[in-house]
Amino acid sequence: MKTIDVCLSPDLMHLYDVRDRTVVVVDVFRATSCMTTAFAHGVQSITPHADLEECKAMSAQGFITSGERDGMKPEGFDKGNSPFEYMGEDIRGKRIAFTTTNGTQAIHKAMGAQRIVLGAFLNLSAVADDIAAAGNSVLVICSGWKGRVSLEDALFAGALVERLQSRFEIECDSPRAARDLYTLAKGDLRGYLDTAAHVKRLARLNVVKDIDFCLTHDKYPVVPRIEGGILVA
Amino acid sequence: MKTIDVCLSPDLMHLYDVRDRTVVVVDVFRATSCMTTAFAHGVQSITPHADLEECKAMSAQGFITSGERDGMKPEGFDKGNSPFEYMGEDIRGKRIAFTTTNGTQAIHKAMGAQRIVLGAFLNLSAVADDIAAAGNSVLVICSGWKGRVSLEDALFAGALVERLQSRFEIECDSPRAARDLYTLAKGDLRGYLDTAAHVKRLARLNVVKDIDFCLTHDKYPVVPRIEGGILVA
Repeated sequence: MKTIDVCLSPDLMHLYDVRDRTVVVVDVFRATSCMTTAFAHGVQSITPHADLEECKAMSAQGFITSGERDGMKPEGFDKGNSPFEYMGEDIRGKRIAFTTTNGTQAIHKAMGAQRIVLGAFLNLSAVADDIAAAGNSVLVICSGWKGRVSLEDALFAGALVERLQSRFEIECDSPRAARDLYTLAKGDLRGYLDTAAHVKRLARLNVVKDIDFCLTHDKYPVVPRIEGGILVA
Repeated sequence: MKTIDVCLSPDLMHLYDVRDRTVVVVDVFRATSCMTTAFAHGVQSITPHADLEECKAMSAQGFITSGERDGMKPEGFDKGNSPFEYMGEDIRGKRIAFTTTNGTQAIHKAMGAQRIVLGAFLNLSAVADDIAAAGNSVLVICSGWKGRVSLEDALFAGALVERLQSRFEIECDSPRAARDLYTLAKGDLRGYLDTAAHVKRLARLNVVKDIDFCLTHDKYPVVPRIEGGILVA
């Protein structure tokens, strides 16, 4: 039986061999929620950049430049990190260069995996179906916050484990912990996360509607995946 | 208000500054349970060794040599890693040199902290009282398994957070997750851990009675602490 495991922080990625796995990268608040929203609204591709200046320079090649540092849009960038910026006709068919504090760093650490997809509550069921169809063992990488564990990413990992546990063996203790936390919280995810560190951070930035939107389950059927180093759907 | 935080793996220790903190090192199965038991039975001191050969060589200086690798007593060592080996008159007043796969490695990563104590369910209340009296902010370091997160250590961290949350502010999401898992599991800790990776590992080694013993709450009032690089009580 294939297995499902969860890496709770990108700083633990050295413990995992991903060559034969499908890796799901999650950054609920807000990178993978934004990217999923963008693909649901017709973006052609997204190039993930760990480096801010490198990302900004892509503007000269016709890319939309997007992202955040510490939750805010970097100076000179076209778009920030709110999913509501990725719903308009202005992005249809376009290429985006994207950099974030945590999410794009986690994508870079996933490179070398058999298959890399992006997960968020917005496309939870689509990701679960995609993983089951691909048939590889699975590793969910939680982006967290600068190496620290984030509840919202762990809860997404738990949601995925819950959906897949009849078809995949639960490996190690992290997926078990994530699943049990999700079972505990899913009746009122927003209430449960009210005291989470990242929610408090975002509330200070006045993006409460982003929080609610990013916790919506199964809004979009798209599964962004890495192909040749860039994200497509 | 002072804070309490939880480091779920020694491989995440680079994220934390421990200079002003009380650090609690936990390795429920079985290093810190053994060491607590040993001090409750009159051991004079325990010297933690990350290196196996260095530990073994301490025999020449009159030390009892103790520990495990992958759960088993290393060749030529006096004692292994079962708490039942540390209850006899043969250890009273003696010095022990101790090495384990995970626990002693975590102790070494805690060096530099304001204060370092060892925690286990066996001395949970004593540790909580000691921490509250010391008054520093707290970091619980879970030893885990070769860098991976272990449920039993996370649950101990959660038990400590539950006891201290009225007097310390919960920092970040890890202590919150640990506390909620403990709240979920505490009614039947043994049953909850039945499918935990480390319990399955220990069950294969036929040390089921060790598991039950290590989950006993508040059996011993001792708090092992590091002083001048060695453990005393």
